[in-house]
Amino acid sequence: MKKAAIIGGGVIGGGWAARFLLNGWDVAVFDPDPEAERKIGEVLANARRALPALYDRAMPAEGTLSFAATIAEAVAGANWVQESVPERLEMKQKVYAEIQETLDPEAVIGSSTSGFKPSELQEGAKDPTQILVTHPFNPVYLLPLIEVVPGETFDPRAVDWAKKVLTDVGMYPLHVRKEIDAHIADRFLEAVWREALWLVKDGIATTEEIDEAIRMGFGLRWAQMGLFETYRVAGGEAGMKHFMAQFGPALEWPWTKLMDVPEFTDDLVDLIAEQSDAQSGRMSIRELERLRDDNLVGILRALKKNKAAAGGIIATHEERFPLTLEADLPVTVDRAIPQTWTDYNGHMNEAHYLEAGAQATDAFMVLIGADAEYIAGGNSYFTVENHLRYLDEMKAGEQLRVRTQVMRGEGKKLHLFHFIENGGGTLCATMETMLLHVSLETRRSCAPLPEVEAKLVAYAGAHSTLAKPDGAGRSIG
Amino acid sequence: MKKAAIIGGGVIGGGWAARFLLNGWDVAVFDPDPEAERKIGEVLANARRALPALYDRAMPAEGTLSFAATIAEAVAGANWVQESVPERLEMKQKVYAEIQETLDPEAVIGSSTSGFKPSELQEGAKDPTQILVTHPFNPVYLLPLIEVVPGETFDPRAVDWAKKVLTDVGMYPLHVRKEIDAHIADRFLEAVWREALWLVKDGIATTEEIDEAIRMGFGLRWAQMGLFETYRVAGGEAGMKHFMAQFGPALEWPWTKLMDVPEFTDDLVDLIAEQSDAQSGRMSIRELERLRDDNLVGILRALKKNKAAAGGIIATHEERFPLTLEADLPVTVDRAIPQTWTDYNGHMNEAHYLEAGAQATDAFMVLIGADAEYIAGGNSYFTVENHLRYLDEMKAGEQLRVRTQVMRGEGKKLHLFHFIENGGGTLCATMETMLLHVSLETRRSCAPLPEVEAKLVAYAGAHSTLAKPDGAGRSIG
Repeated sequence: MKKAAIIGGGVIGGGWAARFLLNGWDVAVFDPDPEAERKIGEVLANARRALPALYDRAMPAEGTLSFAATIAEAVAGANWVQESVPERLEMKQKVYAEIQETLDPEAVIGSSTSGFKPSELQEGAKDPTQILVTHPFNPVYLLPLIEVVPGETFDPRAVDWAKKVLTDVGMYPLHVRKEIDAHIADRFLEAVWREALWLVKDGIATTEEIDEAIRMGFGLRWAQMGLFETYRVAGGEAGMKHFMAQFGPALEWPWTKLMDVPEFTDDLVDLIAEQSDAQSGRMSIRELERLRDDNLVGILRALKKNKAAAGGIIATHEERFPLTLEADLPVTVDRAIPQTWTDYNGHMNEAHYLEAGAQATDAFMVLIGADAEYIAGGNSYFTVENHLRYLDEMKAGEQLRVRTQVMRGEGKKLHLFHFIENGGGTLCATMETMLLHVSLETRRSCAPLPEVEAKLVAYAGAHSTLAKPDGAGRSIG
Repeated sequence: MKKAAIIGGGVIGGGWAARFLLNGWDVAVFDPDPEAERKIGEVLANARRALPALYDRAMPAEGTLSFAATIAEAVAGANWVQESVPERLEMKQKVYAEIQETLDPEAVIGSSTSGFKPSELQEGAKDPTQILVTHPFNPVYLLPLIEVVPGETFDPRAVDWAKKVLTDVGMYPLHVRKEIDAHIADRFLEAVWREALWLVKDGIATTEEIDEAIRMGFGLRWAQMGLFETYRVAGGEAGMKHFMAQFGPALEWPWTKLMDVPEFTDDLVDLIAEQSDAQSGRMSIRELERLRDDNLVGILRALKKNKAAAGGIIATHEERFPLTLEADLPVTVDRAIPQTWTDYNGHMNEAHYLEAGAQATDAFMVLIGADAEYIAGGNSYFTVENHLRYLDEMKAGEQLRVRTQVMRGEGKKLHLFHFIENGGGTLCATMETMLLHVSLETRRSCAPLPEVEAKLVAYAGAHSTLAKPDGAGRSIG
């Protein structure tokens, strides 16, 4: 079992704890704040609701969460230490000294700092090469980006280990090759923040108008392509140079006030706080967090569908989660129910029972060798008929498992029966499905290849001793 | 019929043409470029593929597209003129003079300018109050944001008319109350662009690394909440002031190079073009456009599910598209098939046939008065059984219509039969569905309210003379 030590709780430390725990790591937290356990518990509750909903398979069993009384206790036996203490350099250096008294030399110390360079963090450390910047983005349990900044004196093995661990917990390590104040992303955030402060201060726009100007337009572009690829597309066939030739002259124009930094007066702080209350005060922070997470899960699942941007990271990570086979019937789906699958009746919508059943059919196809390669070769199964019985309600966040019985498996026809159960083992629905083997070229039925048919016949034989499922062969009305 | 005149084609003018045409307006284009017709045709092809896929109802019938030989011909009888000529002030002013010779004084001239202030555009015009900035974002057929900048001398009726027209074609008009160079959004884009040029020039990051730093992290946040609301949530219960107290000091730190503008040398242009080729050159611009649009449709549909951000605009706009009732069976779904509904077999996935059928059931519920208000009162129908027959493949971009026959409609049980057809009228699937009326409080079955039952009985009576549908009451196997 792998162990992560989280030094410093709060929203960021809690997000890290959730990432590790939900990916099967044990987590020990050290934070002198007496409220730390409650705060981390709240972040974990959000994470348990959102992170598993990204995947169409069950995540590993959760690791064990503990709270340590000292740094030494937290980091003993840890493979990874994540430091998220306040942004004060001397405090961070003091914490590293204490960590390195106990920590395994093979482990890595990642810092969540948004501003300090690794060379600053490493100053005076017993082993500077063990300390890297691994800068996350809130909510840490959903956003994949981690800026990995090793600085100038680093151990390549530590960087490789850092990338491996971060990938293991479903994140995207971006190696920042040259250290610089605020790394990369926060330089953009800071630039936009400065310009936004000016616009509010000068009375050009309110906080709400600024948010709309971002999320109704370029925010949607940046969620999937970023800056340069978006502009490359905008430039059209004429290419990137043509685009820059158009945009270039604007650099000479007074299009930002960034040469100058707004004074951070109490009046400006009050103005922004008031506008923010007017904009978002109708919802509590907890409600806003859940709306944000539901939106992020929806966006990330949409990107996953096309394996694009952050969706590609999730799709690749999901392949690591194995489907467990059971003695009697194969488990073809084991997953959490995302919020996006529910409807106005407060339960899983009828269409997603079929989506789960279709995922079960897909998983069964892989079991018999009718996988992506088989399909690329021009063969597939098309569904010709489905019959669903809805026996019990299923709710967002619940576990959903499907076990699949083969009713018939010779020749062109494939007859399956899916048992759809919740985490408590209650049968919530059944789906009976009839498929036909087809050639993707002619789009007409044909016999499956012999190796697929052989596996199918073996399953059908093994299942032939089972009772006919209740509801099989039933008609409506 | 309403008419829009598009002065200046290309990617932006073409996007505007698509917005108006697909929302049922007639469109006349003037562009002296001999390639204009081909270029606009390409944008339209992309728009026809993506925009209808945002909605779960059919958009209005397309208007008529024409190409005019002169500005006068294009703007004659137009209710809206959209100017998207190159960013040269004298050229724009000359175009307005020519437009105003012919244009109806009640019509509005919107300019797509990203940099000029309305007062600059209006200088010397016959009627300055007719000219506004209406600044769009690429792709104009998908992104809802329009910055409406009327400037200091404006006619409030023109602003109201502009907002109404833009809302009518599914966009989000953001009223910019004070004119300023580059309006609002482009000031942020410019700030990020400048910082990005520095990072590339100084060898800190490549174009690809910068795009990843955006799209794997804060881009996902900005797509749904923007800047201030995101930070409000990050600040937690302590609130916006607490957040700013933490972030404030960074204003004093050297976190951007924006006080200084990078020199736009040939070397820098070449460096960026080379890095962009290395990053994205494996795909053609056409392929990138389609990936971008598929991602945007997926993201926007995910936001629509929660009626959040741009998804709220789409949900509200969709309510304007009426469902037409036919003499024999009610048409309960009429829509385009989004790319996100297809699977590895190159056709609509089986689960989305049920999703379309469930939408048909929902629409039928509204017809009999079991609508949102009825559900809010604690009553609803739960599906207990579905039987689907898949008769023909359906493809992305095709039209999908559902007609619904009532098989039984007295008491607690409701038995429906949905005919799922493509745009050519071919029956591609049937879905037989049995529902039970329930109390949302007890989650148990109960009788529907009398007014709903009365409407149901009327439908069932009218449909009782129809033949029993082929496949009704059928079982699998």
